[in-house]
Amino acid sequence: MKPPARPNVRSVDVALNDSLLTALTAVVGSDRLLTAADDLIPYSFDGTAAIRVRPGAVVFPLTTDEVAACVRAAAEAGVPIVTRGSGTGLSGGSVAAPEALVLCLARMNRILEVDAENLTMRAQAGAVTMKIDEAAARHGLLYPPDPGSMRISTIGGNVAENSGGLRGLKYGVTRDYVMALEVVLADGRITRFGSACVKDVAGYSLKDLFVGSEGTLGIITEVLIKLVPKPAARRTMLALFDTMESAASAVSAIIAAKIIPCTLEFLDRTTASCVEDYAKVGLPTDCEAVLLMETDGHPAAVADEAERMAAIAAAQGAREVRTAKDDAEATNLASARRNAFSALARRRPTTILEDVTVPRNRLAEMVTFIAETAARHHLQVGTFGHMGDGNLHPTFLTDERDEAEMARVHHALDEIVTKTLEVGGTITGEHGVGLAKKPWLRQQMGDHSYELMREVKRALDPKGLLNPGKIFD
Amino acid sequence: MKPPARPNVRSVDVALNDSLLTALTAVVGSDRLLTAADDLIPYSFDGTAAIRVRPGAVVFPLTTDEVAACVRAAAEAGVPIVTRGSGTGLSGGSVAAPEALVLCLARMNRILEVDAENLTMRAQAGAVTMKIDEAAARHGLLYPPDPGSMRISTIGGNVAENSGGLRGLKYGVTRDYVMALEVVLADGRITRFGSACVKDVAGYSLKDLFVGSEGTLGIITEVLIKLVPKPAARRTMLALFDTMESAASAVSAIIAAKIIPCTLEFLDRTTASCVEDYAKVGLPTDCEAVLLMETDGHPAAVADEAERMAAIAAAQGAREVRTAKDDAEATNLASARRNAFSALARRRPTTILEDVTVPRNRLAEMVTFIAETAARHHLQVGTFGHMGDGNLHPTFLTDERDEAEMARVHHALDEIVTKTLEVGGTITGEHGVGLAKKPWLRQQMGDHSYELMREVKRALDPKGLLNPGKIFD
Repeated sequence: MKPPARPNVRSVDVALNDSLLTALTAVVGSDRLLTAADDLIPYSFDGTAAIRVRPGAVVFPLTTDEVAACVRAAAEAGVPIVTRGSGTGLSGGSVAAPEALVLCLARMNRILEVDAENLTMRAQAGAVTMKIDEAAARHGLLYPPDPGSMRISTIGGNVAENSGGLRGLKYGVTRDYVMALEVVLADGRITRFGSACVKDVAGYSLKDLFVGSEGTLGIITEVLIKLVPKPAARRTMLALFDTMESAASAVSAIIAAKIIPCTLEFLDRTTASCVEDYAKVGLPTDCEAVLLMETDGHPAAVADEAERMAAIAAAQGAREVRTAKDDAEATNLASARRNAFSALARRRPTTILEDVTVPRNRLAEMVTFIAETAARHHLQVGTFGHMGDGNLHPTFLTDERDEAEMARVHHALDEIVTKTLEVGGTITGEHGVGLAKKPWLRQQMGDHSYELMREVKRALDPKGLLNPGKIFD
Repeated sequence: MKPPARPNVRSVDVALNDSLLTALTAVVGSDRLLTAADDLIPYSFDGTAAIRVRPGAVVFPLTTDEVAACVRAAAEAGVPIVTRGSGTGLSGGSVAAPEALVLCLARMNRILEVDAENLTMRAQAGAVTMKIDEAAARHGLLYPPDPGSMRISTIGGNVAENSGGLRGLKYGVTRDYVMALEVVLADGRITRFGSACVKDVAGYSLKDLFVGSEGTLGIITEVLIKLVPKPAARRTMLALFDTMESAASAVSAIIAAKIIPCTLEFLDRTTASCVEDYAKVGLPTDCEAVLLMETDGHPAAVADEAERMAAIAAAQGAREVRTAKDDAEATNLASARRNAFSALARRRPTTILEDVTVPRNRLAEMVTFIAETAARHHLQVGTFGHMGDGNLHPTFLTDERDEAEMARVHHALDEIVTKTLEVGGTITGEHGVGLAKKPWLRQQMGDHSYELMREVKRALDPKGLLNPGKIFD
């Protein structure tokens, strides 16, 4: 069977017309408008390997009104619009479209208000995720979603992709924290969805339709997010296993014991070796699975849960369970997992990161299938991810200049995604569809849902100018 | 100012045409099809006061295929379709439309699977909420959303309305537990949204668009819901206050102390008196606010939080804090709150239940405003609700046969809703828009969002046959 090829998108060299550039200059001034070919290169790609498309121009709005004015000008000229923040996306969702106007919202980065009484924060879309969490922490609060790129990713990008993170098992994902959005629609109108109320069922949840819509329905300019009290205590542990099955059994047994820890993350042997080379955190490189376990909450509950999790891991065959003795050591252990992608990326020129997710009880089977598939195609793969969520990140270490190897990667990816769908999984747990996952979306959703989604897109963006080519073929 | 009148809907006496009735009989047989005028009466209203519309016919499908066949037949005949479960809705969302075909899904009530390993349950839309929770409990699990009507409400209705409940503060609402839906679309096609994965960002979240869409976008026939481990311990307390302000301060202080209890519910003096008359649970009838507080989770955390909550309530002026000594007493205290609506409904012939919600820190102000507004219009009102969520249920005790009094009720309601919007609240926290809240929806959403919602409706139900007249004017 021929696998779907990775989308074939190429750089083109067509300038936006002069009248549009004049209009944009009138909105943002010439110092916040890029048009020179060299200046556009950094906006031709995101965190996704092997996908590059040069835009026609890039603007850096500072306010929602500027965004709206840019959208109106582009819509009038019939020019497509691609919105991006820091460009950390992993599915090509923020890669430019040919001749497109890129709206880079990274300078709309203000945190507008922390309301500690109502447990909410208002911020511009370009605010960096980590700054959001830091601002919450100053009030003794926590913003739980913590995607791997949170040091540079923006909250608007997180909302557009419905990003996950390492605390998803207990705390959920970005969607669970979005209370309201300010949005610029495809024709430049500005509107708001949602409210500051904990509960609000007035009308369709357009807010939820926009969360995860990857910039294809409108441009998110401001967010109102929910915060939670910072847990009083946490305990971080590493459990080392000789087989992936025993690590997966430990995860199942922990949940069966009615413990929902905030973190149950794993690294396979390849990933652990790369991390150890890179970060020297003292990981063993001879065990098949490293499981990072973290529980947080009330101190007594944390102490008890940590003890029970350690006992369960041991009972399921863990060779060793290490408990961090203080916050610094906890951060060190967690950084082992947080560095997984960077560590793997050092090995070969190109890193193709997958994001398949399966029902939790199919996880060990999937990890084994991934390793076998990679071996069969003579490929290097390291797998890590969110074991508690069933979310796997098999990462192919390859070289995009080697066409034969890339063809094998595409074959392997197709087999992995097909198997994922067979066991009731999803083609993407947290990275989005973007360009990278388009070939499989219809298969997952089914024809009727796929067509319905297209109807929604047509209704909200009738000219098809918003992030064209993403999600849909 | 003339307030928007309650929607003027009347019973009509037009039969569905014979060929449609023949087609429906072919699908469900004559014993699951009602057409006689007397038989239709119970399907002419739901839990909402003073709204009745007689349908053309009622069918009771048993399977999704039967639902689809009925929808195809009705769509072909151009006959509107109204879906209902047990008819416990409180905004008129499940009241029939004139000449409509009512699809009553109450007999599609099977629980199809409990997957304790993946913490999920699959059920038909007509399964009763309490049966869902009981089935979960048999596996040591919990389905947290517990709307007041859970003893008879159906899970499909809960999803269509995005119902809340008494545990919303800690556990969220129905939306937070919906993983996947099976849906029959307006033209009879069957499709599914979502998956059994904890995280899934493949395509737009049509699932989230359908949750809370009140039967206007499609017919939910099956749900896959998330369960959580049943908390090991809980502690239930009642705190009695001499002013509503001190009860609200206690709620704010508890949250400021970083405690998120599962329940922070209140009854005002009128409601407490009615409940005591009705249920004899030993409530005092001379205090201005009764606060029901419940914490659940790890036993040590629960013991500690309960003690701190009691101390905070006392420090904020609680006259007395009672702690349930066992499960039976806890259930008794909680039943005081659970019986509030029934108890109020006994006082006068007509009970008009409001559902406004405000940011938590505006709650005491709203309760006072409601009491003043009722007094100014010489009306009886009892207010209770979800204090931790800012969700108020002012309940007017009136008589729909008294036109003058009803006019005063409408004036008072309009003032309350207007004030709610002024303080950043929502016209409905958990009951939905249906027929009752239509007059204020555009004002809350703003023109652009309202029109966008209409575009979505047009895209998914181009003939406007699904639950016509609900949500939209």
